[in-house]
Amino acid sequence: MTSKLNTPLLDQVTFPSDLRKIDDKDLPQFARELRDEMIDAVSVTGGHLGAGLGVVELTIAIHKVFNTPDDRLIFDVGHQCYPHKILTGRRDRIRTLRQEGGLSGFTKRAESEYDPFGAAHSSTSISAGLGMAVAAELGKTDRNVIAVIGDGAMSAGMAFEALNNAGALDARLIVILNDNDMSIAPPTGAMSAYLARLASGRTYMGMREIGKKLTAYLGKNIDRAITRAVEHARGYVTGGTMFEEMGFYHIGPIDGHSFDHLLPVLRNVRDNSKGPVLIHVVTQKGKGYAPAEAAADKYHGVNKFDVITGAQAKAKPNAPSYTAVFADALVEEARHDDEIVGITAAMPSGTGLDKLHDIFPERTFDVGIAEQHAVTFAAGLASEGYKPFCALYSTFLQRGYDQVVHDVAIQGLPVRFPIDRAGFVGADGPTHAGSFDVGFLASLPGFVVMAAADEAELKHMVRTAAAYDDGPISFRYPRGEGVGVVMPERGEILQIGKGRMMKEGSKVALLSLGTRLADCLLAAEDLDAAGLSTTVVDARFAKPLDVDLIRQLARHHEVLVTVEEGAIGGFGAQVMHFLSNEGLLDHGLKIRSLALPDAWVDQAKPEVMYQHAGLDAKGIVATVFKALAHNHLGRDIAAL
Amino acid sequence: MTSKLNTPLLDQVTFPSDLRKIDDKDLPQFARELRDEMIDAVSVTGGHLGAGLGVVELTIAIHKVFNTPDDRLIFDVGHQCYPHKILTGRRDRIRTLRQEGGLSGFTKRAESEYDPFGAAHSSTSISAGLGMAVAAELGKTDRNVIAVIGDGAMSAGMAFEALNNAGALDARLIVILNDNDMSIAPPTGAMSAYLARLASGRTYMGMREIGKKLTAYLGKNIDRAITRAVEHARGYVTGGTMFEEMGFYHIGPIDGHSFDHLLPVLRNVRDNSKGPVLIHVVTQKGKGYAPAEAAADKYHGVNKFDVITGAQAKAKPNAPSYTAVFADALVEEARHDDEIVGITAAMPSGTGLDKLHDIFPERTFDVGIAEQHAVTFAAGLASEGYKPFCALYSTFLQRGYDQVVHDVAIQGLPVRFPIDRAGFVGADGPTHAGSFDVGFLASLPGFVVMAAADEAELKHMVRTAAAYDDGPISFRYPRGEGVGVVMPERGEILQIGKGRMMKEGSKVALLSLGTRLADCLLAAEDLDAAGLSTTVVDARFAKPLDVDLIRQLARHHEVLVTVEEGAIGGFGAQVMHFLSNEGLLDHGLKIRSLALPDAWVDQAKPEVMYQHAGLDAKGIVATVFKALAHNHLGRDIAAL
Repeated sequence: MTSKLNTPLLDQVTFPSDLRKIDDKDLPQFARELRDEMIDAVSVTGGHLGAGLGVVELTIAIHKVFNTPDDRLIFDVGHQCYPHKILTGRRDRIRTLRQEGGLSGFTKRAESEYDPFGAAHSSTSISAGLGMAVAAELGKTDRNVIAVIGDGAMSAGMAFEALNNAGALDARLIVILNDNDMSIAPPTGAMSAYLARLASGRTYMGMREIGKKLTAYLGKNIDRAITRAVEHARGYVTGGTMFEEMGFYHIGPIDGHSFDHLLPVLRNVRDNSKGPVLIHVVTQKGKGYAPAEAAADKYHGVNKFDVITGAQAKAKPNAPSYTAVFADALVEEARHDDEIVGITAAMPSGTGLDKLHDIFPERTFDVGIAEQHAVTFAAGLASEGYKPFCALYSTFLQRGYDQVVHDVAIQGLPVRFPIDRAGFVGADGPTHAGSFDVGFLASLPGFVVMAAADEAELKHMVRTAAAYDDGPISFRYPRGEGVGVVMPERGEILQIGKGRMMKEGSKVALLSLGTRLADCLLAAEDLDAAGLSTTVVDARFAKPLDVDLIRQLARHHEVLVTVEEGAIGGFGAQVMHFLSNEGLLDHGLKIRSLALPDAWVDQAKPEVMYQHAGLDAKGIVATVFKALAHNHLGRDIAAL
Repeated sequence: MTSKLNTPLLDQVTFPSDLRKIDDKDLPQFARELRDEMIDAVSVTGGHLGAGLGVVELTIAIHKVFNTPDDRLIFDVGHQCYPHKILTGRRDRIRTLRQEGGLSGFTKRAESEYDPFGAAHSSTSISAGLGMAVAAELGKTDRNVIAVIGDGAMSAGMAFEALNNAGALDARLIVILNDNDMSIAPPTGAMSAYLARLASGRTYMGMREIGKKLTAYLGKNIDRAITRAVEHARGYVTGGTMFEEMGFYHIGPIDGHSFDHLLPVLRNVRDNSKGPVLIHVVTQKGKGYAPAEAAADKYHGVNKFDVITGAQAKAKPNAPSYTAVFADALVEEARHDDEIVGITAAMPSGTGLDKLHDIFPERTFDVGIAEQHAVTFAAGLASEGYKPFCALYSTFLQRGYDQVVHDVAIQGLPVRFPIDRAGFVGADGPTHAGSFDVGFLASLPGFVVMAAADEAELKHMVRTAAAYDDGPISFRYPRGEGVGVVMPERGEILQIGKGRMMKEGSKVALLSLGTRLADCLLAAEDLDAAGLSTTVVDARFAKPLDVDLIRQLARHHEVLVTVEEGAIGGFGAQVMHFLSNEGLLDHGLKIRSLALPDAWVDQAKPEVMYQHAGLDAKGIVATVFKALAHNHLGRDIAAL
């Protein structure tokens, strides 16, 4: 399928092998066509725009020079991979990006042999690439392995660990540092300052001429050892010492939008490199699309938009987003308490901590993509009596798990963990789903684990966490907007370990943790209508459990269903552990546990995901009917 | 309490305030006494010897110069803290180290105000220290914060993340890099090579003279700005650029056993530093005790020993250690399969991977203290068809959790995870307990999770993991020696998701995962003797569950007890989730779930820990009796 656009060169290319037939001199035109195609596609799908636009030339150059897919190309994070997908047999599906049944918004092994290692979380590519490079050496093949990683991703410790190991192993690995001085947020940290110095007037601006010389040199000496070229380059280029100290040859900075720079450097590295090489490429995020270039966030993530004006479609919200509610509530609490501080790992706007920063800049810390450090930094602040809110997405909190255990929980330090994007996340798919936090936190002794059923609850939990000083406390809330409840002026301090009775019945009890409460209430209406008097409880706490309330539910109902938007091993597991050891399951209580399915769930609209998981009202009702059918074995389940 | 040793100076010191009264010129003698005391203490307790010996002078110098505990001193890892404990009010208990009810083998907040931040896992100190330094600035105090971190710990990404953030925040933090070129294993990675170059002839050896000059300079200009001193130092010292690029002032290398070097540098930094400073101190692990100096591992961790000869007491083993069984089995499988590779994160001897390295050095990778990288590096190898065994301790696997989720599990890559030190670990206490792995792995879709009940089972599981290529697979095994079962020549390939019936009964079923099997069998004898016919099953798999077997157990027994050496939310949770949703709990099955207690368990002998947890045979029997008592509510539980 070709688009309505005029893309004569692009139309000749389905796979990189086709691209390799196109003459070098035609590549700038080819890049324009690819850019147009990508902009047009994302305008109808929404998604990550700026990152892909920034690497159009780089992506083309890599596929032109290297023999993908036999040469392995790994994109770090993967959200810059749309041009790559268009060039690797997926142009015909590019307008299905991030839709149910369509292409993933990230690289994905299951999708294409051109995606040898999937990504979505940042800073994994060097480790994976080093594994592949070592595999190539063990297998005595001479394939190339190329990892493309952004400057923001370089702040993560994982990238450092991989550089450290690569330098020591001396494996043949090509790392391309895509330096656009613009990760999701303005980059922070000494590393980014260092890279900025490398790419600044002192080096890059003065490097334009030097770059030409270097390029000419590399071009003329294409068969010479890369070592000599690089030694030469090192003589020219100030900087790069940090990477050289780590055992890498460092080339650059070079202009990532110039094929004249990219092609000869990549060809020489391909033909001559022996150990690990780092090519420092400077690009511009959003390059080639004026509205993106002009926007502060370079159109990092966009809705559908108008290609001509750049205006993004905005769905009319029914209620404020959970993130906004959290951010406002935190600001409010911070006004009341000087000891509250906020910590984000490179997600100030994603977590809403930018609002705290606007009012209390000295009490807001963006530590970079560095969740391990974020957690222990927070623990350090807590040890001195401050009240840190370490705001991470559920999926990224996994990066700091050991620090949560070792530095926070074992020491009983009152770090507050607002956990955003808990549960399904829709278009971002399984890599970003927040599935495991309740399980891996509630298993920790002394941890208080909350989940907000609606946006007013979230406000209460922010205040509760601010007021709670006896140990670690977390509260999870989902992506997207609230359910539209009336909001209190200020949150209330909840009693720790106490749930709330939403509706009292006598036969069926729905015990909900978090966001499925609204569907439990809908389910209860249906169940009541079917003559099954239904109780609904918002547990609020996965830990400590409201044992008095749960005992009552178990004693006075025929069916008890736990409902949560998390993996098996979380809230339901805590409830059943308690009930079983109290002997409350001994007398024929029909207990059921609804959790996320034991499968990686691909992107789709959230309502579809809930439906498939049996976590919508209909699914909850079905579970209750089926449970009762077990009690009447002679009856047909389907008839109920 | 003073020891039998002749320690006149040390006897004058209970707290650092006493130390500060001792004259600088007497400190070498003081250090000798402190060293003697420490050697004598560890000779009766066992524990970490080499690390503490290496920092005797450094510890004294810090407490002499800084105003602890108001100035905050954090020891990374914490196993070098014995001299610190002796100097901070704990000399009278130093011979209770690592014993039940005694001093922890690590720093611990609950133990002393001189331990402002506990440790045990490595590389956390800079993050914690930065949190404290920021807290000091927010609170407008001018206290000093000092983090002492070894060169090995510097390979962890977390340390890099913290340096990166510290350099950017420009907070007043003092990092002392204790470079003994000898972490637990010989250090690996480019960073350690870099540090070695800094400390080598090119710098440190030539630095002896320069150091004197620097020291003299600092001494004469004690009131001048540190910036000038450091600028001066930078002129002298080659190297240090990496830390300077990260925004730190770098001082050193200096001789960590010379008070003439240490005191003036520390005093100047105390009085004049403004931003982050890194002092590079070179020490010798095991310093001052000839047997330690001569040993390859510098007496890193020792049993009780004879002070004169250095000979360590060795308990006669009843069976090979699990680690040794794993190591031998892996070597055996590696002989049969060229694609097997081994990965360790700086624990070659702890994990037994040194044996694989002896035979297949090119297939064994020590990536340094870098669990995040270790996991994704393994994933990269697996993506190319290799069969990586990524051997980590349970507690350290927490460091790579996100990588397990994102890079291994979501992609379904067949990385093998041998998980050592699973469950209680005795003297190392809660920071090293392997409590959470079953929970956080079994919640991942597609993961195969095994636990070895004895050392023969472990051998089977190594072979099973080698043969299984359909996705990620883990197998956990405990610290210490096996139970003495007959060992097979080579392991068998176990059927995935199938448990084994150990003993068939009719009333009570004990469903064990892992090491508690032997106690379940003992418990079954007692139960049978009490007229309660007991079935015992070794589940082998926490995932996938042997659903056929578990269904049968549920249908044909009155009591079903799951038994595991892991936290709530693990195996028992998986079993109950299955049983509840199948309706198998609807009919009065008395189900109980024995797991680790929901508390952080301090160091003790393992048998004591099992007893307190109710996980020994007696505890299992008591659980069954109590469960049956619930069925006969009129009867007295105690009478059963």
